[in-house]
Amino acid sequence: MAQHRTGENTILFPRSPHILSSASVVGPKEGRGPLAHAFDLILDDALCGQQSYEQAEHAIFQQACELCLKKANMPRDRVQALLGGDLLNQIMAASLAARELSVPFLGLYGACSTMAESLILGSILADGGYASPLLCAAGSHFCTAERQYRFPLEYGNQRTPAAQWTVTGTGACLLSEEGNGLARITMSTVGRVVDLGIRDANNMGAAMAPAAADTLTRHFLDTGRRPGDYSRIISGDLGRVGGGILKQLMEESGFALPEGLYMDCGLTVFDPADDTHTGGSGCGYSASVLSAMILPKLHSGEWKRVLFMATGALLSPTTSQQGETIPGIAHAVVLEGE
Amino acid sequence: MAQHRTGENTILFPRSPHILSSASVVGPKEGRGPLAHAFDLILDDALCGQQSYEQAEHAIFQQACELCLKKANMPRDRVQALLGGDLLNQIMAASLAARELSVPFLGLYGACSTMAESLILGSILADGGYASPLLCAAGSHFCTAERQYRFPLEYGNQRTPAAQWTVTGTGACLLSEEGNGLARITMSTVGRVVDLGIRDANNMGAAMAPAAADTLTRHFLDTGRRPGDYSRIISGDLGRVGGGILKQLMEESGFALPEGLYMDCGLTVFDPADDTHTGGSGCGYSASVLSAMILPKLHSGEWKRVLFMATGALLSPTTSQQGETIPGIAHAVVLEGE
Repeated sequence: MAQHRTGENTILFPRSPHILSSASVVGPKEGRGPLAHAFDLILDDALCGQQSYEQAEHAIFQQACELCLKKANMPRDRVQALLGGDLLNQIMAASLAARELSVPFLGLYGACSTMAESLILGSILADGGYASPLLCAAGSHFCTAERQYRFPLEYGNQRTPAAQWTVTGTGACLLSEEGNGLARITMSTVGRVVDLGIRDANNMGAAMAPAAADTLTRHFLDTGRRPGDYSRIISGDLGRVGGGILKQLMEESGFALPEGLYMDCGLTVFDPADDTHTGGSGCGYSASVLSAMILPKLHSGEWKRVLFMATGALLSPTTSQQGETIPGIAHAVVLEGE
Repeated sequence: MAQHRTGENTILFPRSPHILSSASVVGPKEGRGPLAHAFDLILDDALCGQQSYEQAEHAIFQQACELCLKKANMPRDRVQALLGGDLLNQIMAASLAARELSVPFLGLYGACSTMAESLILGSILADGGYASPLLCAAGSHFCTAERQYRFPLEYGNQRTPAAQWTVTGTGACLLSEEGNGLARITMSTVGRVVDLGIRDANNMGAAMAPAAADTLTRHFLDTGRRPGDYSRIISGDLGRVGGGILKQLMEESGFALPEGLYMDCGLTVFDPADDTHTGGSGCGYSASVLSAMILPKLHSGEWKRVLFMATGALLSPTTSQQGETIPGIAHAVVLEGE
């Protein structure tokens, strides 16, 4: 039995790594929404001055990492690792950003759960004294995700009512074993892959909700905590449909989420007038909301302790075409004010 | 400065996690080669009884993990995490295997360097007391890789002289903070993304060699060791072309690799009569050779200390089509006999 654990699945960080700084870079649509004042950089144009949306996604990833280092006044050559990923095939946005940053790189893929996965692994590296400081980051781009997972934008495809809107944006955090920053990471629960048989690639909230319920339930059983022990429990991008299913599943598991305590990042970024259907998604989603909203509220003391749980739908166009169902995964980290 | 480090980039594992068991499952072509006697399972048919090669890749991944657990007599529900990945878009083989295994899952993508990446992160989890035992695995499949990265097999495309042959196979290791197994992991050097401007997706050995030289050089500088301190220095899948470039680069950096000390997994699996051109590749390559050859030789005492360095080419068909160069990455772990 590993020593830094409680219960079956929850990892403890006795030295509580610190998030020294964070940064978010988003596209113009995101910059029209309710969090406009809180993003570090809002692009005028989703192409970000590049020749393709894929190149733009890479540029945004890199900008967020560089901005994050700048905010902490941290020279690039002191960074001991970058942990991160994105939604492009072969996580090319993160890989190319890692090339430009020239720091040791550990590429991750957890679909839209990637930001939480990077914080978990980053915390283990920093807490255990293996690497510090390090960058954790995740990004996505609406235009590349539509082309890769659904249809190229030029096709003008109609979106279904349960569809979500992939965020154009990247969030990055600088983690350190020491210092005084925005928040500390005190524990984490690693997700399992859970599949209740959803086949509709336009209903990812429903596909991810059972994994979110599994992780949350295991977290409460492992720690002996209740939902009320958190200022907020925040899922990544379940949206309206998935969030509703999660609430129902948690009620059934005996850990009902009280009104006002639970929220989903997917409903915070876009202006309701922009009609994104059931909400936002993408691994840049929870990452940029973490930086623009969650960490500032922990830093100001408005929130004391947050369970941040990013959720991912594990599908590819090939598996969908071959009739495979869509499993989900959800990783949770506990963030506390300094 | 993190405590468990030496030099700029090398991580130390004071408790030296143990590889309790390993397993390899490969396709029929691999089963005709020189390592035929050493693989745990050789498939009669690359479809593995499935309806598509993608499903076969997932099935092989799962079989290797299950076999690895069986060889150590380890019940599945004691496994605290699976760390791994493959070459399919969205690492679907690993994700679907994780669904069937129902253990906490941390998805990784490092192209063909994934096995070393999973051993590095797995060692950190086990060494630090965060999770143990855990599974580290990587897999690939010739038929899915050809379709995804180059052309569907049915197209009958002619292969170029510098082309490599993707292995159909998966290798898995069971890592533990305690016990007496096949070998111990004592240190690791995390790779940086290095790009010297190769654009030919059929010459991945050349694209990866500069990253391999970067990691090797940093490893020697960090540790004060010389190549002769290792029984073998083994790269993942540089093949004949990339391996030749690595030897030249290492000579220039002052750490020449003596004849007979350096070898590449990519030249060990296939029967020369099968003409794979410059050698094998794929993230299942180094993973299955690790299990079938490297760990047994460490266990028997024939080799005392091995530097296992899996190499990855970070490209996607989209980046190639957009004219992007191909950066490489190489992660190294030090394996020692028990």
